[in-house]
Amino acid sequence: MVRVVSIYAPIQEELAQVEEALQAIKRVDFPELSEMLDHVLAPGGKMLRPSIALLSGKFSNNHQELLVPLAASIELLHTATLVHDDVIDRASTRRGRPTANSLFDNSASVMLGDYMFAHAAGLAAHTGNLEAMRMFSRTLLAMASGELEQDMTAYDYSQTTRQYFQRIASKTASLFAAAAEGGAIVSGAPEAWRAALRDYGESVGMAFQIVDDILDFSGDEAEMGKPVGSDLMQGTLTLPSLLLMERHPRDNPVKRFFRHRHSPRHLAEAMEMVLNSGILDECYRVAGDFRDRAHTALEAVPAGAARESLAEIADYVLERKA
Amino acid sequence: MVRVVSIYAPIQEELAQVEEALQAIKRVDFPELSEMLDHVLAPGGKMLRPSIALLSGKFSNNHQELLVPLAASIELLHTATLVHDDVIDRASTRRGRPTANSLFDNSASVMLGDYMFAHAAGLAAHTGNLEAMRMFSRTLLAMASGELEQDMTAYDYSQTTRQYFQRIASKTASLFAAAAEGGAIVSGAPEAWRAALRDYGESVGMAFQIVDDILDFSGDEAEMGKPVGSDLMQGTLTLPSLLLMERHPRDNPVKRFFRHRHSPRHLAEAMEMVLNSGILDECYRVAGDFRDRAHTALEAVPAGAARESLAEIADYVLERKA
Repeated sequence: MVRVVSIYAPIQEELAQVEEALQAIKRVDFPELSEMLDHVLAPGGKMLRPSIALLSGKFSNNHQELLVPLAASIELLHTATLVHDDVIDRASTRRGRPTANSLFDNSASVMLGDYMFAHAAGLAAHTGNLEAMRMFSRTLLAMASGELEQDMTAYDYSQTTRQYFQRIASKTASLFAAAAEGGAIVSGAPEAWRAALRDYGESVGMAFQIVDDILDFSGDEAEMGKPVGSDLMQGTLTLPSLLLMERHPRDNPVKRFFRHRHSPRHLAEAMEMVLNSGILDECYRVAGDFRDRAHTALEAVPAGAARESLAEIADYVLERKA
Repeated sequence: MVRVVSIYAPIQEELAQVEEALQAIKRVDFPELSEMLDHVLAPGGKMLRPSIALLSGKFSNNHQELLVPLAASIELLHTATLVHDDVIDRASTRRGRPTANSLFDNSASVMLGDYMFAHAAGLAAHTGNLEAMRMFSRTLLAMASGELEQDMTAYDYSQTTRQYFQRIASKTASLFAAAAEGGAIVSGAPEAWRAALRDYGESVGMAFQIVDDILDFSGDEAEMGKPVGSDLMQGTLTLPSLLLMERHPRDNPVKRFFRHRHSPRHLAEAMEMVLNSGILDECYRVAGDFRDRAHTALEAVPAGAARESLAEIADYVLERKA
């Protein structure tokens, strides 16, 4: 975690304030709600998205105090999405811990997610910045659309990699882009920096999701805290399985598994074929291209500790194992 | 429905535009999503909340064009809340039609609600008004808190009527208040009108929820399109059952039903005792006080067709049978 520590160096103080803003949300009258919030907002997350927001705001000196509510809003929106995603996917573990829906039932988790969305919107409103709030609602819509698209296309093997990239751009990269651009907006950065930071955030988000999808094949279950093969089990085609389908359009184990959804044998076969194919290396090259694009985007903003940390985040996203 | 028709007279054109804005949301690429939106956004609702927003904006001549996105945002937020509420309550019918969760399963309904929340936030952002957007997020939080509170206190018979009034103020009246105050805000009404309209909206919302809670005892199942006794079945104490508990603190059928949750006999006993007690008349008197307060609040805004319609909405809320 040495790299991660150095990433946080320029924003230690602000990150502590973000953590405090998230803790403040837990102080509610109802012990049951407080317990649920405690569970889903437990410290120890990597805080990548709020860090990107805080670092992206470091290039201008205006309205620095607005970065903390923005960053807290983004982390909360992310966490709320996870709570609902876990309900939707009927997931039982995340980061090695039981999901909210497995502990507190679906109804409570739906409400909990809504409550967190509402607080996230409230924190976005705290910035008092119309553009930031517009971006918040656009991002919310993109994320909800991406999640819906994923669900609507489950088990549909006519999907293309082009659709995959569009889907992860909505579902995942939109929030990274909002974090970076949001930091630029609330700190009053000039237009050129803002566009560059948005491009940076979007690229990091794409790399992040591709690596996520790779780790769902090759990751270590203990480190990830969730079972491998989850995506195929949900009927979600990701870059590795899509590339496998492209290489073997006629007969391949993914199609067979989708036709026999509950067959562990077909799932194992599909997983193995991907692992033995060199496809994951190709996926890492694609993720690497997005990382490189993130680095290039950063050339437009002033050099210094903040830019250094943003560059390290882009590298870290590819190296992470969970 | 004569009264309802006259309510709409001053805002016919704008209501058609709100309807159009809601229809526009249905035009999406995914037939399944489009079908779900078609189901939950079917025309024919009473459009009380958007009407209040549109009418409340009629007292000033500024930025009238912003009232339509505001009103559409409010109706969409309301409908999104219903979609999630039905998931939470495992309801199978609403307005005489199957709920989204009973047609499309819980996961899809969670996503559908999130998607509608996102669009509602986007429409609120369309007003370009920072205060309106802040109010949107505050309202979202109030509604989510009210819903959580209702769930957390289910089957808890130590609740008081004071807690009930607070809960329905959050869960229901906050959106009516936001509709009325929002209309005032985006049309640039002076502060005194804005405060009066907020007071009006809050009072109408309180009356609306109390009548809703009365109809859950006395309503006609066919007209309401949902079973009576739903609240007690969910463990939700409302004004009628709370007044019954106050009158018979020691031994009463609500307590007995809460102890034997699946006993239809105890439920029938509780329903009957409320119906034979005169308690519902008392509840109507309380709702009538809120209606009167709404009328009084309206005295602060200029007389005319818009004020007339708002007054009629307050009356209609008490007279409705479903």
